[in-house]
Amino acid sequence: MSQLHWEDFTPGRAFEHGPRRLPRDEMIAFAAEFDPQPMHLDEAAARETMLGGLAASGWYVCCILMRMCVDAFLGQSASMGAPGVDEVKLLRPVRPDDELMFRATVLETRASKSRPDMGLVRFEFVMSDMQGRQAVVLITSLMIGRRQKGDAA
Amino acid sequence: MSQLHWEDFTPGRAFEHGPRRLPRDEMIAFAAEFDPQPMHLDEAAARETMLGGLAASGWYVCCILMRMCVDAFLGQSASMGAPGVDEVKLLRPVRPDDELMFRATVLETRASKSRPDMGLVRFEFVMSDMQGRQAVVLITSLMIGRRQKGDAA
Repeated sequence: MSQLHWEDFTPGRAFEHGPRRLPRDEMIAFAAEFDPQPMHLDEAAARETMLGGLAASGWYVCCILMRMCVDAFLGQSASMGAPGVDEVKLLRPVRPDDELMFRATVLETRASKSRPDMGLVRFEFVMSDMQGRQAVVLITSLMIGRRQKGDAA
Repeated sequence: MSQLHWEDFTPGRAFEHGPRRLPRDEMIAFAAEFDPQPMHLDEAAARETMLGGLAASGWYVCCILMRMCVDAFLGQSASMGAPGVDEVKLLRPVRPDDELMFRATVLETRASKSRPDMGLVRFEFVMSDMQGRQAVVLITSLMIGRRQKGDAA
């Protein structure tokens, strides 16, 4: 795949990647470092919570999502970063050794107000389990280089 | 500090933690695993980008924020998780070995519609540098256990 630029991200275009398994040991090690709460660390303690058993930190699933995004298309794109994240919905708990699919769909695009060499692409990113149930939905805009400099919007 | 419950999170109450240094080697190792883009990995490549030099993945800063949140108050609270994240703003690049402060401020609270044993607390989380400049602002609602079960809202 040749490098993707802003012009290539037309609304409705989608990119998929996966499945990727989220190993129990990595899931727990991540939580121990970044989100050390009982429901992410300890099976017995987790059973006492509303999650009903050990569940991944939402941040771990977001980080795996980001890696799958880079592997799916962003690593072959003229990526210039992101101004933030619009929204993250954690819809279902992710369990040790679950396998997840990544899907990115272009929602809309717009030229940058200030930089003629880049545009913004608003995406919906979804992580789903192998039964097609959505676990995480994330909406964000990425800054992507333009193939041809244009007028600022 | 005795365990904090939903009733303790009154609007305006704030919790601070830090500073914490974000070491260059950890910042790069995180990016190599979860966000392998040139501006997060390689000093020379990063200088060619609009960031003007190596900068942390926004996800790394969010994960450090989460850890500082647990250390500041959430680890001593009746935390029941989160339904997602409302918004993340990445306002300034975070550089290798930068030191950041964490501050959480309660914006509003409400009882759960479905569960009399918990409530939601909407927070603003801010990561700032030692000059007081905001690097990341994150708005999210956390689910927190109630000390006394109430009527559902």
